[in-house]
Amino acid sequence: MTPRDALPSLGDGHPVVAIDVGGTTMKVTSVSADGTMSPPRRVPSPPPGPGSADEVVRIATALVHEEAERLGAPPAALGIALPGVVVEDQALGVYSENLEWRDVDFRAAFARTLDLPIAVAHDVRAAGAAETRLGAARGASTALVLAIGTGIATSVQVDGRLHVGRGYAGEIGHAVVVPGGEPCVCGNRGCLEATASAEAIRRRYERDTGTEVSGSKEVFARAAAGDPVAVAVRDSAFDALALGLSHAITLIVPDVVVLAGGLSEAGDALVVPLAQRLESLVRYGPVPRLVRATLGEDAGLVGAALAARDALAAQDDPQPSR
Amino acid sequence: MTPRDALPSLGDGHPVVAIDVGGTTMKVTSVSADGTMSPPRRVPSPPPGPGSADEVVRIATALVHEEAERLGAPPAALGIALPGVVVEDQALGVYSENLEWRDVDFRAAFARTLDLPIAVAHDVRAAGAAETRLGAARGASTALVLAIGTGIATSVQVDGRLHVGRGYAGEIGHAVVVPGGEPCVCGNRGCLEATASAEAIRRRYERDTGTEVSGSKEVFARAAAGDPVAVAVRDSAFDALALGLSHAITLIVPDVVVLAGGLSEAGDALVVPLAQRLESLVRYGPVPRLVRATLGEDAGLVGAALAARDALAAQDDPQPSR
Repeated sequence: MTPRDALPSLGDGHPVVAIDVGGTTMKVTSVSADGTMSPPRRVPSPPPGPGSADEVVRIATALVHEEAERLGAPPAALGIALPGVVVEDQALGVYSENLEWRDVDFRAAFARTLDLPIAVAHDVRAAGAAETRLGAARGASTALVLAIGTGIATSVQVDGRLHVGRGYAGEIGHAVVVPGGEPCVCGNRGCLEATASAEAIRRRYERDTGTEVSGSKEVFARAAAGDPVAVAVRDSAFDALALGLSHAITLIVPDVVVLAGGLSEAGDALVVPLAQRLESLVRYGPVPRLVRATLGEDAGLVGAALAARDALAAQDDPQPSR
Repeated sequence: MTPRDALPSLGDGHPVVAIDVGGTTMKVTSVSADGTMSPPRRVPSPPPGPGSADEVVRIATALVHEEAERLGAPPAALGIALPGVVVEDQALGVYSENLEWRDVDFRAAFARTLDLPIAVAHDVRAAGAAETRLGAARGASTALVLAIGTGIATSVQVDGRLHVGRGYAGEIGHAVVVPGGEPCVCGNRGCLEATASAEAIRRRYERDTGTEVSGSKEVFARAAAGDPVAVAVRDSAFDALALGLSHAITLIVPDVVVLAGGLSEAGDALVVPLAQRLESLVRYGPVPRLVRATLGEDAGLVGAALAARDALAAQDDPQPSR
């Protein structure tokens, strides 16, 4: 696995700045002309609320100026990965639950603060692009990069192209895996996210035991030590993840499924039981390779950098091969 | 709805012959230069077994010669839709359960009998292409055409392109919707196909009542008349179909879902309860339009004709827009 602070090289091209906007942290890196990415810096995200999008734009603009000084050269574009529902080609932040914005035109917003082309990316799809082009799914034609953290969502690459689906593709965290099961933030019950996200694993364990834990990692540790409630919560999460994945696999037949997000840090403790369940669930078609992400939590940032480079390449060559 | 015997016009182009190979029947039509499709003729499919692929090739070759006489002009290509697992661009019949073949190279087989370019299609994807180009999903960019008959499978069109997935895309009949449920031919339990296909509905009703029925249509009629077992079987099939579809919808966010195959002949008695269930299950993203197929049981034949026309267009213009 690539260490967290050693980002991959993007190869020769324009110098660009990339930013990944999360619910609590914004990360920034700059990419030099030879493709080297600087170690990511972190600043706090603005608080949620009506002004959050403007604040993101203001902070991002300041970060670009700072990175330009570090780079020693003006960047040719900014790539910015956004959370929630995003339509990349319209630079539209449709909806962010964490930052509480709706229908924000980020191209228009940045036009007021920054004289630079911007490329908007979606955090999960950006991470997916990074893993399929530079990480664990390198070379795959059809691939899922499943992010399991506070929520659950997957990038959906079909025959070499990332599918956007009007901004909603891959939101399988809100597919029902246990009819009538755990209540979900979306208003439904038994969604994959409500059953098997890192956050759901913590919450369910605390509810069933009355004992506070630091997170899913501690639940896994307790399960490994034989705590029967921890085993039950963990195994039902594995069952749910495998069932949700089996539906996605049966529909698009990926070459590889990459596990990303906080829960993937469990490594083989996650990959092995999931792979076993998939072997049993997927009987008709090929079972894809199941691997852990290699770009870690910086995959979205790498994807934002790729989006900036791609946008410039498309300008240089107005008939891209796609 | 288009009546069964009025096939759509394909528009001006090369004259071609199209054949759809089913488990019990082979259908043939010829398409004239102005795009008119002749009323389909039916002949029996060969029996399953080791020689079935050769027999299909022999019968298809004879049908092409007969159609050439009817056309009054030599056809420029044959388009042939095959059942089972098919890889179109390799003209490969990977597997047919009904006709019992494995790994048949149909281009090589036809090269021995027919001096004509052939285009191999997959029956479900061919029907999907026909519905999205000339039928109920016309103009849709991302679409599912779900065939519910003896089995269940869907075509998967993503951003305007049919996804093949090494021949296995869309086999959601073998996704589990009821863990531990009905045994399935694939060896698993609780598959969508084992719960909700027209055949499963008949079989489950007969098992639960000991009463023989002619098919799912009769079960639906008995349910409408208040038979509680028929209601239970029908409604659990609807639940399963909606759950399976909701996973597919959440992953790729289709603009439209087309219901095809024998069960779709139930019309609103199927479409309305399914649409209601989807409204409740799909909370996070857009719920697609749910419509009934308009090309009926000849959609696969129309798709085979389109495949033949497409192959010739690709020859005429070796750099297709795709």
